Amino acid sequence: MVKIGLPVPPGFTITTQACRSFLSSGTIPAGLYDQVDASLAELEKITGKEFGNPKNPLLVSVRSGAKFSMPGMMETVLNVGITPAVAESLATLSGDPIFAWETYRRFIDMYGRTVSEVPPAEFRKIEQRVLASHGVETIQELDVDGLKVLSDAYIKENEALTGKPFPTDPREHRRKSIEAVFHSWNSERAQIYRRRERIPSDLGTAVNIQSMVFGNLSDDSGTGVAFTRNPATGEIGNYGDYLERAQGEDVVAGIRTPISLSAFGDKYPKVYGELDKTMSLLEGHYRDLCDIEFTVEKGKLWILQTRVGKRTAEAAFRIATQLIDEGKITIDEALARTSGDQLSQLMFPQFDLSLPTQEIARGIPASPGAAVGEVVFDSRRAFEMAKNGKKVILVRKETSPDDLVGMVAAEGILTSRGGKTSHAAVVARGMGKTAVCGTESISVDERALLFTAGGLTVYEGEIISIDGASGIVYLGAVPVIASAVTSYLEGRLSAESTSASALVKAVDRLLTHADSVRRLQVRANADTPEDAIRARILGAEGIGLCRTEHMFLGPRRAYVERLVLAENEKVQRGVIAEMEPLQRADFVGIMMAMSGHPVTVRLLDPALHEFLPPLAELTAKMARAEALGEEVSARDKSIFDAVNRMHESNPMLGLRGVRLGILIPELYKMQVRALVHADMDVDFPIGTMIETPRAAITADRLVSYADFFSFGTNDLTQLTWAFSRDDVESTFLPRYLDLELIPFNPFESLDQAGVGILLQTAVDHARRVKPDIKLGVCGEHGGDPLSIHYFNNLGLDYVSCSPYRVPVARLESGRAMVTQGAHNN
Amino acid sequence: MVKIGLPVPPGFTITTQACRSFLSSGTIPAGLYDQVDASLAELEKITGKEFGNPKNPLLVSVRSGAKFSMPGMMETVLNVGITPAVAESLATLSGDPIFAWETYRRFIDMYGRTVSEVPPAEFRKIEQRVLASHGVETIQELDVDGLKVLSDAYIKENEALTGKPFPTDPREHRRKSIEAVFHSWNSERAQIYRRRERIPSDLGTAVNIQSMVFGNLSDDSGTGVAFTRNPATGEIGNYGDYLERAQGEDVVAGIRTPISLSAFGDKYPKVYGELDKTMSLLEGHYRDLCDIEFTVEKGKLWILQTRVGKRTAEAAFRIATQLIDEGKITIDEALARTSGDQLSQLMFPQFDLSLPTQEIARGIPASPGAAVGEVVFDSRRAFEMAKNGKKVILVRKETSPDDLVGMVAAEGILTSRGGKTSHAAVVARGMGKTAVCGTESISVDERALLFTAGGLTVYEGEIISIDGASGIVYLGAVPVIASAVTSYLEGRLSAESTSASALVKAVDRLLTHADSVRRLQVRANADTPEDAIRARILGAEGIGLCRTEHMFLGPRRAYVERLVLAENEKVQRGVIAEMEPLQRADFVGIMMAMSGHPVTVRLLDPALHEFLPPLAELTAKMARAEALGEEVSARDKSIFDAVNRMHESNPMLGLRGVRLGILIPELYKMQVRALVHADMDVDFPIGTMIETPRAAITADRLVSYADFFSFGTNDLTQLTWAFSRDDVESTFLPRYLDLELIPFNPFESLDQAGVGILLQTAVDHARRVKPDIKLGVCGEHGGDPLSIHYFNNLGLDYVSCSPYRVPVARLESGRAMVTQGAHNN
Repeated sequence: MVKIGLPVPPGFTITTQACRSFLSSGTIPAGLYDQVDASLAELEKITGKEFGNPKNPLLVSVRSGAKFSMPGMMETVLNVGITPAVAESLATLSGDPIFAWETYRRFIDMYGRTVSEVPPAEFRKIEQRVLASHGVETIQELDVDGLKVLSDAYIKENEALTGKPFPTDPREHRRKSIEAVFHSWNSERAQIYRRRERIPSDLGTAVNIQSMVFGNLSDDSGTGVAFTRNPATGEIGNYGDYLERAQGEDVVAGIRTPISLSAFGDKYPKVYGELDKTMSLLEGHYRDLCDIEFTVEKGKLWILQTRVGKRTAEAAFRIATQLIDEGKITIDEALARTSGDQLSQLMFPQFDLSLPTQEIARGIPASPGAAVGEVVFDSRRAFEMAKNGKKVILVRKETSPDDLVGMVAAEGILTSRGGKTSHAAVVARGMGKTAVCGTESISVDERALLFTAGGLTVYEGEIISIDGASGIVYLGAVPVIASAVTSYLEGRLSAESTSASALVKAVDRLLTHADSVRRLQVRANADTPEDAIRARILGAEGIGLCRTEHMFLGPRRAYVERLVLAENEKVQRGVIAEMEPLQRADFVGIMMAMSGHPVTVRLLDPALHEFLPPLAELTAKMARAEALGEEVSARDKSIFDAVNRMHESNPMLGLRGVRLGILIPELYKMQVRALVHADMDVDFPIGTMIETPRAAITADRLVSYADFFSFGTNDLTQLTWAFSRDDVESTFLPRYLDLELIPFNPFESLDQAGVGILLQTAVDHARRVKPDIKLGVCGEHGGDPLSIHYFNNLGLDYVSCSPYRVPVARLESGRAMVTQGAHNN
Repeated sequence: MVKIGLPVPPGFTITTQACRSFLSSGTIPAGLYDQVDASLAELEKITGKEFGNPKNPLLVSVRSGAKFSMPGMMETVLNVGITPAVAESLATLSGDPIFAWETYRRFIDMYGRTVSEVPPAEFRKIEQRVLASHGVETIQELDVDGLKVLSDAYIKENEALTGKPFPTDPREHRRKSIEAVFHSWNSERAQIYRRRERIPSDLGTAVNIQSMVFGNLSDDSGTGVAFTRNPATGEIGNYGDYLERAQGEDVVAGIRTPISLSAFGDKYPKVYGELDKTMSLLEGHYRDLCDIEFTVEKGKLWILQTRVGKRTAEAAFRIATQLIDEGKITIDEALARTSGDQLSQLMFPQFDLSLPTQEIARGIPASPGAAVGEVVFDSRRAFEMAKNGKKVILVRKETSPDDLVGMVAAEGILTSRGGKTSHAAVVARGMGKTAVCGTESISVDERALLFTAGGLTVYEGEIISIDGASGIVYLGAVPVIASAVTSYLEGRLSAESTSASALVKAVDRLLTHADSVRRLQVRANADTPEDAIRARILGAEGIGLCRTEHMFLGPRRAYVERLVLAENEKVQRGVIAEMEPLQRADFVGIMMAMSGHPVTVRLLDPALHEFLPPLAELTAKMARAEALGEEVSARDKSIFDAVNRMHESNPMLGLRGVRLGILIPELYKMQVRALVHADMDVDFPIGTMIETPRAAITADRLVSYADFFSFGTNDLTQLTWAFSRDDVESTFLPRYLDLELIPFNPFESLDQAGVGILLQTAVDHARRVKPDIKLGVCGEHGGDPLSIHYFNNLGLDYVSCSPYRVPVARLESGRAMVTQGAHNN
């Protein structure tokens, strides 16, 4: 900003390198304070003031500056350099003792909280006491005596907490403030923020030391925050807040109500004119929305800090397209400035939180959306209630494939166990259902038909609202606002129509561009004609994975049971023959829905006994019957024996996929026949999933037998890490993430450094032997933005994801082409 | 043999290439029969006889010849070219109609069985009928008429079975015989043999066509089998059998009793002298034991076939050292000619099968040895009976870690479920206990304290004998012969002592040589001081894997239970502190046993709940109590809840190893403290197991933190293949092996083409970053001969195996250095 001639208070910067050295060694790097002293001497020369000298005091701010903006996460100490003597002198020099002692008070307050880590609540308590004893209600009303009393009370609390006298040397204040900023890099909130935003932990923070300007000096002083466009809606025009006679955090602290930027303009047209020009200059420079902190000191404008502004998903799309029209950026850049995550936020209906709500719990936001309905604890009951026109929320400890009927029927799913990759979460995302999982603060009693949340008990039939984007659970019905973007994506709203909002037009423009530049095909994972139709509407160019196991659920379990219990191969063949027309009808439905687009069908994957009741349930049943001396039916006994015999200690490493096909070849033959008859074309390509490390390693040999490879990165991740997706989130993964032993959940975003190497190996080997082999990926990673960029760079032909992620994958596949390898995890 | 001037009947060979082409296409390669005709014409020229010409008939043998000898597995047809007209003529030419028609009969018999696949039993039935009708007892007593009647009866049976007239053209006989030899490559017995011997399936067989010589021509004719040394004991001197007036299979068919080779020598000194010279010549040529088939035709010796002879383990060691002393081979070659499998056979006590026995079942030979004892079905009972001085065989459906106490106490283990890598098998091999597993023909009733085998019921207390090398179960006590080799290996018998047998001296000589040439260190997997001492005695140079989980079993489960149930971290820390002195004592014991040799200790690996009762058992217990309205103790309830909460759907992908250490750091800290105090040396190397594909892939990064890598190839195999070792043998692996989808069990021998690539990657990466990193392998593969050769070539520093495999690993590590990369799977 100095370089482009803006009025910035002079200062200097301590680099991130010093911070990294400090954080790893625990000591300040040799020579750092000598360099700080030298730079400060320079600053004194420029400002004509002297740090610590009451006669002509230089005060400075000590604040963080980092490569990636982390608003509100890092520490700042203002007014460093002030002491009682300096305050006295400042009172004389400014002719305003209140200003001087209020500045002193601010310093003691910030230093105490930031350096000595006094809990802010303690200071607030002290304030209340002093205000009361002075008979006033706000700090602004205190006289000089009151401000001195308050400052002394802060100091006493500080000394009581640290057990050390409060330092009086301003040089000591300076050193401690610098260290506090360094330390704040590793504060819990900063760590959480970085993890969420995938900012590397080892960057460290820089420290900016700037001479102070005082927004609290006079009535024509103040401080404000300005955005070059509305960061919430994306609307064109300056936007912001201004607070008179204020400093630093006051604008956002909410103690006094600021005035809008336009009101500020009306009141101070000259300064505003200057600010407006600066804002244009900055936006022109950054070619993006800017977020600017400024201070007015006695009518003079100072720019303290600027950064590219954070914005909502809506603003991101709108601003990006505005900037194209204004000739500031190309459409490629505009595309790069939006994201799939933002698009997916825009797709889900949202709660109208402008009305009062009663939050009762928070869980893991597992599948976005806003769902309202009656609480129900049983899947069959959910199905029946939905059939009678009721909207229901299925509440379970966790879900299993048995709950599918209930999950389909419900508006949303709430579980007390499991994480983002639990059964409930994965299935819900696949179906585009709202889900909140792992809500550990609720206790579900599926027998008593109730759950408790804190002191509250919620019974079956009571209405709750769950927000799958935030994980919040509300008691009662919260009104839902529909998403225009989804109406557009699903073809119910044309971007050309007059009722289409600026947002819809922006999404249309950038998604169309993404489609035109992307190299990756986008397919969907769909197991039913309904899913296939939805996927097509949302832009899927084929089905990358049609799982046939979904065709063995529901009423068809009866066939599976008969298959498992068949006393010989002849009976087994008979059952399989009965299944064939049903299977053919499934395939015909899907082919018709996809009208000629490619459909990749996977033959039955899981072991047959996974379609039968779980062993634990059967064991308990048999033990109960035995204890009571009750007769067990021959059929129940047979099923128990069969499940027991077929039970696997590690089903994920067991009888799955082609292994089942080799044990019961008739089953696969039936599926292939059904497929040939459905498609009436026997010349279709035959490929294989690559789901085991061995398949990836031996891809050069497998490739001779395959027309395509479909990478099943979920299973590949499980096997490469030895992480069971069913268990990992309830056992050690959270701890691993807490300790940053792994930087992210490898089931959400592809582990490029591990699993990625196997993919790379397989792709290289396969392409060397058969350059035209079709390579795709299906599963959760196919809809994950970071992973999509990686797959694009790897040269895959397509990604396949759940239908609702298709627009996201289209956008990200386009973005992958216009951004330059910047997206590694 | 022709080239070195031996009397071999002239002939020619059809290559294996023709066979491979025939087997893959199903048709005889173009031009093959033209080439056969041309070669036959050559043969006719040499012999002066003509194939199919009754006036001067040429008869030939059509027999298999393969790269690897497969004795008795492949087909042969003798006397091809004979027809009734040729027989008539042969009768005249030889003056011996019986010889001529007996030769004809032999041809019809062999052709029928080999080409038309008439079940031999059918022909034997026909024989009985004809012999009876002619009033004689053997075919040798039949007259010409009887032989004609019998041959015609064979032909009728043949035609009845095939539905086609028996061919009369000898050229057709020749073609069909060639095809039959080709087909025999894929006979079931040949496939099984190849699988056992790891002979590749795609080699195919050659076909030798040789002019016939007739051992059945006269009294001074005959046929025999000769070995240049005794293939059973290794004793020096010719050894074999001879049968007068006989052909082909007669010697081994056991219809008539042959005479010994020395008796043959006494009777026919001239021919024997010729044979003896030939035998010396052949042994000199092959520089090894030779197995020779010969025929004497009217006093003239013909050598039909020779190969390096199969031999017993004992003979292998003795002959190898004899040949060094005779200056025929070097000691390196001698070492190469023995094997670890042979050594391990020599180590186990064996049943004396010269006495009558009652076999009642056959299972999978899971851990070799010969064990005799009383049947017992419960581990605690086994322990108590053993304490009272009884020898017991523990009989279970399958075993779990709970059975350890019983397994230690028992002489041997017999299970009805599980294969070579089941818990029972792995633990038994680790302990050197005899085990027969997966004996599916027995049905174990652990409650009624009995098992049934066919119609037989065996109750607790009855005595059985189990042979872990053959998998055979006998009723009653079979006498056991002790192994002198084991006495020697365990230091109870010196190779220098006069009582040491030639075998012990031979083993000592070659094992000493192996130790002197091997590069791989051999360590043992040992968890207790007793195991460690045993390992040292057997030559282990350290402990490659000391599993600390074994220190949490038995009475110490009480601590685990308290740990799991601890209500807070303080209580948990208290329990852990109580465990520390016990743990330290464990380590002190092992260190003392290893007196300064390296010991690699692995911190606790499995999840805590694996030390508690299994969930199914607890579930049944709770269900029973609930059904009966019985009170469940708070402790039982807590354990059930804990096990339920900690239950993992795929424990193999779950809370194991360092993951547990990260969740409960105090546990690992305690173990490390116990170790430091036990060793009193804090400067020990710290390394890591490489057990997941990801660890192997990222070895270049891991290596910076590790002084050594220990490859856990069991787990690595599980994860790379997605094969659960606990399940795979009872589900699909047997079928995979049957179908030859995989050529061998990858848990027995390392999968070089898959898991091996990961090892290779890890080794390359690790050595590039840290050339002096110590690399070893522990687990089942560390004691497997083929795998040891692979590890040697990979440049590992050591292998670690169960104590009883240490001598095997020492021998094979030496062999790996003297054989040249010939040992890949």
